[in-house]
Amino acid sequence: MIKTIRPLHHPSPESITVTGILHALSDPVRISIVAELRKAEGGLNCIETTSRLQFSMPKSTCSQHYRILRESGLIYSERRGVELTSRVRRKELDSRFPGLLDAILKAWRKEQEG
Amino acid sequence: MIKTIRPLHHPSPESITVTGILHALSDPVRISIVAELRKAEGGLNCIETTSRLQFSMPKSTCSQHYRILRESGLIYSERRGVELTSRVRRKELDSRFPGLLDAILKAWRKEQEG
Repeated sequence: MIKTIRPLHHPSPESITVTGILHALSDPVRISIVAELRKAEGGLNCIETTSRLQFSMPKSTCSQHYRILRESGLIYSERRGVELTSRVRRKELDSRFPGLLDAILKAWRKEQEG
Repeated sequence: MIKTIRPLHHPSPESITVTGILHALSDPVRISIVAELRKAEGGLNCIETTSRLQFSMPKSTCSQHYRILRESGLIYSERRGVELTSRVRRKELDSRFPGLLDAILKAWRKEQEG
């Protein structure tokens, strides 16, 4: 059996929607992943992210969260060896919806800090 | 049969969550309702909102959207006769998560304007 590598889908900046972003970030695990990725300039793979967040979850669950984030346009993923490294599409997001991600992550931090 | 009026549940400001807000606004109809309610100082009931938005939907669907918005802490509803009039909980939201709702609605407007 030949194992093919599925291409990764990244929406174009114009097809990123507000409701898509809100849906992707409406899950506590996913918003935490994005907050963590945003701090890491070079990007992070699933193992690195869950380790930094001290989350315990199967890699498949993490991959699924990454997929939802990627399809919403929030993150960009690329293969490095067998791992997928992802980063926040900061420039494109800031250009399409200035201030949106900042405001959401600021509110999230405030809530986390109690 | 005695018909009882169910009490309306409004979460306290401290129990409003970012992910709850994002989930409530991740639906195009609900974010449109909130954008419309925010413009109307005195509040609007379902019929008024759908008429302003020129949306055609059963009243029960609108009521369900209102319920999700209310339970997320985004709107405050009160009975006026047989209708429920709702308004955005602007002060409480601005105090709990400064700038969050503004940034989301600004991005939504930008997307709508193309």
